[in-house]
Amino acid sequence: MNRVVLFATSNPGKLKEARSILAPYGLEVEGLDAKGTEIQADTTAEVAASSAKAAAERVGRPVLVEDAGLFVDSLRGFPGVYSAYVLKTLGVQGLLTLMTGRRGRGARFSSAVAYCEPSGEPRVFEGVVVGRIAAAPAGRNGFGFDPVFIAEGERKTFGELTTEAKSRLSHRGEAMRKFAAWYVSRAR
Amino acid sequence: MNRVVLFATSNPGKLKEARSILAPYGLEVEGLDAKGTEIQADTTAEVAASSAKAAAERVGRPVLVEDAGLFVDSLRGFPGVYSAYVLKTLGVQGLLTLMTGRRGRGARFSSAVAYCEPSGEPRVFEGVVVGRIAAAPAGRNGFGFDPVFIAEGERKTFGELTTEAKSRLSHRGEAMRKFAAWYVSRAR
Repeated sequence: MNRVVLFATSNPGKLKEARSILAPYGLEVEGLDAKGTEIQADTTAEVAASSAKAAAERVGRPVLVEDAGLFVDSLRGFPGVYSAYVLKTLGVQGLLTLMTGRRGRGARFSSAVAYCEPSGEPRVFEGVVVGRIAAAPAGRNGFGFDPVFIAEGERKTFGELTTEAKSRLSHRGEAMRKFAAWYVSRAR
Repeated sequence: MNRVVLFATSNPGKLKEARSILAPYGLEVEGLDAKGTEIQADTTAEVAASSAKAAAERVGRPVLVEDAGLFVDSLRGFPGVYSAYVLKTLGVQGLLTLMTGRRGRGARFSSAVAYCEPSGEPRVFEGVVVGRIAAAPAGRNGFGFDPVFIAEGERKTFGELTTEAKSRLSHRGEAMRKFAAWYVSRAR
């Protein structure tokens, strides 16, 4: 088994979390700062699978890709797979503006981790964390919509948690651990 | 020259407009209700070019594809190439909510028409119409964000105009006419 996993992402926050999550499995993470062109799709699984396949063909090595999204119930799943774009254009504040006057604040973070070998088919591992949108941003850790997301049963936003504490609860932690368990067991 | 143009779109409003715009050039439009997977990109030109190439390979015939978006200045270009998704999730009302309290209402509609033959490279024609976001929706014609878009120098929204009147002003009309002029002249 190759203990070094090539992780294609242009997001330093994701890279940091992947390293923290995969280290206990004896896996090292090498960053590849080029995720390639993403497709428009309804689910993070479709986006991640497509990106992993394209990246593996391009670099000629097995590649890991992760795609995540915040799906807000009262906004019919918006911003969903376009979360990164919405963050860039509207920001966290734009999301809060859209929720003004709405009673339901339920939301979930969804993550899909796809692993693909060149000429192979992608294998996808998913994680979901249910929670709610905070009334105001809090915390400077994490990235993306972390400062306004509170996981079910918690009082702090993801932005207020350490990387380790967040990963224990998070969609990405769950998906990455599923991948790691499969990857490590496969090699035995 | 083949007078029948195959137009891949799942949007009946676009098909209707394309027929109205291309008829004066002696072109008939055949609808293909399957645009295929779209990519995530910054411009409608990239999205249309990629979709046209994929569709032409898939059906083995020359294909026309159009991608359009509404780019609002004060929202850093949001909803842009994801306009269809944003309309489905947030609706016209969501866009108006986002603009509450913002002074600038400037916006533009952008359209890219891509034509591609099997094994060929896509050719892209673009059209843009500058205007502003109305305070409230008006009109039942058109589709998408038409009821809240007013072209520069006009008083009515695109939703209040007939197909013919809208196409004279619109981004799609401009892009389609550029395509038609090229397509017809090429055949001489």
